[in-house]
Amino acid sequence: MSHRIAVLPGDGIGTEVMPEGLRALGAAARRFDIDLTFEHFDFACCDYYLEHGKMLPDDWFDRLKGFDAIFYGAVGWPEKVPDHISLWGSLLQFRRRFDQYINLRPCKLLPGIKSPLADRQPGDIDFYVVRENTEGEYSSVGGKMFEGTDREVVIQETVMTRVGVDRVLKYAFELAASRPRKKLTSATKSNGIAITMPWWDERVKAMSGNYPEVGVDAFHIDILTANFVMHPDWFDVVVASNLFGDILSDLGPACTGTIGVAPSANINPEGKFPSLFEPVHGSAPDIAGKGIANPIGQIWSGAMMLEHLGHKEAADAIIAAFEAVLAEADPAVLTADAGGHGTTETLGRAIAERI
Amino acid sequence: MSHRIAVLPGDGIGTEVMPEGLRALGAAARRFDIDLTFEHFDFACCDYYLEHGKMLPDDWFDRLKGFDAIFYGAVGWPEKVPDHISLWGSLLQFRRRFDQYINLRPCKLLPGIKSPLADRQPGDIDFYVVRENTEGEYSSVGGKMFEGTDREVVIQETVMTRVGVDRVLKYAFELAASRPRKKLTSATKSNGIAITMPWWDERVKAMSGNYPEVGVDAFHIDILTANFVMHPDWFDVVVASNLFGDILSDLGPACTGTIGVAPSANINPEGKFPSLFEPVHGSAPDIAGKGIANPIGQIWSGAMMLEHLGHKEAADAIIAAFEAVLAEADPAVLTADAGGHGTTETLGRAIAERI
Ligand SMILES: CC(C)[C@H](C(=O)O)[C@@H](O)C(=O)O
Ligand SMILES: CC(C)[C@H](C(=O)O)[C@@H](O)C(=O)O
Repeated sequence: MSHRIAVLPGDGIGTEVMPEGLRALGAAARRFDIDLTFEHFDFACCDYYLEHGKMLPDDWFDRLKGFDAIFYGAVGWPEKVPDHISLWGSLLQFRRRFDQYINLRPCKLLPGIKSPLADRQPGDIDFYVVRENTEGEYSSVGGKMFEGTDREVVIQETVMTRVGVDRVLKYAFELAASRPRKKLTSATKSNGIAITMPWWDERVKAMSGNYPEVGVDAFHIDILTANFVMHPDWFDVVVASNLFGDILSDLGPACTGTIGVAPSANINPEGKFPSLFEPVHGSAPDIAGKGIANPIGQIWSGAMMLEHLGHKEAADAIIAAFEAVLAEADPAVLTADAGGHGTTETLGRAIAERI
Repeated sequence: MSHRIAVLPGDGIGTEVMPEGLRALGAAARRFDIDLTFEHFDFACCDYYLEHGKMLPDDWFDRLKGFDAIFYGAVGWPEKVPDHISLWGSLLQFRRRFDQYINLRPCKLLPGIKSPLADRQPGDIDFYVVRENTEGEYSSVGGKMFEGTDREVVIQETVMTRVGVDRVLKYAFELAASRPRKKLTSATKSNGIAITMPWWDERVKAMSGNYPEVGVDAFHIDILTANFVMHPDWFDVVVASNLFGDILSDLGPACTGTIGVAPSANINPEGKFPSLFEPVHGSAPDIAGKGIANPIGQIWSGAMMLEHLGHKEAADAIIAAFEAVLAEADPAVLTADAGGHGTTETLGRAIAERI
């Protein structure tokens, strides 16, 4: 069976790490005899916007909807296009229109990667953030009144739905139930955000009735971020709203030192639409063009894509390959952020060979 | 000149650390010849709620508004009263009705306190979070529709005003201008929260025109939390909306290991209403009643109160006193969280003697 993948390199270092992501996928496909076909697109990046006045062609939905997955680099280049335009015009469209309502992000301490936390070893930190990815705080409802005057008022609405929240909770509970520790942590802020978040707590409580084997706790987002730093070993699966999940899935990888290499899966679990896989890192205009970006975020995202497509063994082989290359710590191979003086390509090739 | 202070111990360990806060204030008042008078109130705690069905008496505003400051312990006891009821019925009322629109929280690495971050020394981390404290994401506007059905929709509005945001930015710029590094960092999320936050960025830009000597940068809240962990030395003054400030002012102290001892000032800068001083920590039902809570959060909040009342020297003496006691590291004096086996009272007395 052949999988058709849409490739969107995006902006900045996105275009540099993408070839290494594809190289790793190619190596895994050969080894495990998986039939992958790739089709490249030049939209969903700021240069496309500068030429066409929009991030996507009008028929993007029809052109992409038939693919089995979307492999995305990184998008955004604030000096060319303001972030809220480039992001709402691309990534956030994909998430909504393709109903990729799960954003799944692993936080894992890796061998050979230095964590900013004291006294933590690989194995100590290994959890997932499950983020709601289509609604909540990222809404397009609201506006301004008395604009430009001293009386100016700006309103933005957080919109949560039972359908939207319950399906994410279900996914998170299922994931927790499938893991040895069977623990779920809910991110809330029901003491301060007093309409949506107490209701979120109720939905967690209701869903937990279906999963008596899963241990559930909850923290307000302020102390939860603190606990990510103080007690990252407490966590197994963390479920959060769109905004809270966004924060936690940057903070988690920061705690493991993997912010530059963490992957992200934007999943439509029913497979009605293609899911989208992208590194957590952005397009990094400051280092773009130098060929020194760490490609592991893109490669790891590729592994998540293979797992999503049913090839868990191949996914594990990719992860084992970059863990091994990291553990070897050859400075000629590793990029500067990982303590070496290699390039995006030396690191990408070493990983592909290992696969 | 005499300062009249309203004392509200609150719940749980709030009632245990308050006497030590008062002891330190008493010692500083004697040494610096400051005339402080204290009046104790039994409301704004969950036991009051259980007896009266509300957190505050109807005339609370008139009873408190004439004080020069409010010294609060910690509030909340979820097993007695749900958090959103106890908090919206007390602390959040005070902040709003007394227009304490600045929430100021120091993040400082202290001698003798272990930080969860690797390789950081006292002096490396020393910044303030300036949080908007009356509007924004903590709004009471919103509601539910199709309640209890599959079509349920829950909406909560974030409401920002030009008056509300500009006055906080002004305070933060003034604070940054008064410090040696003269650096201000704005917490945003204009790529995702696309109505309020791009507007917040505009207001920061507009205000920065008045402070050419202050260097300004901005990070999206996700990567900002990551940078608190990876590069806490980057920050001098961080300005943030109500929710983002709430998160950052727990995460900052977590990074310095001071979450149990950090103070918080809720300030009405014009002095039209009393300002309120409280520890960052909560009422900690799990350790309440044991006499082992660290009182430094309350004591440090007292120091911020004295500084606010114009007694900077006395405030500095309190801070120097607890820094010295921490640096001495006598296990018989320190509480368990600080590596000792002393009590709230042994630590409080040692600090008061030192003052
Ligand atoms: C208790 C809660 C409502 C409060 C807040 O969110 O403001 C607390 O976390 C704080 O930071 O003072
Ligand atoms: C770029 C931005 C809109 C996006 C988000 O906030 O979702 C990013 O931070 C992410 O986490 O994928």
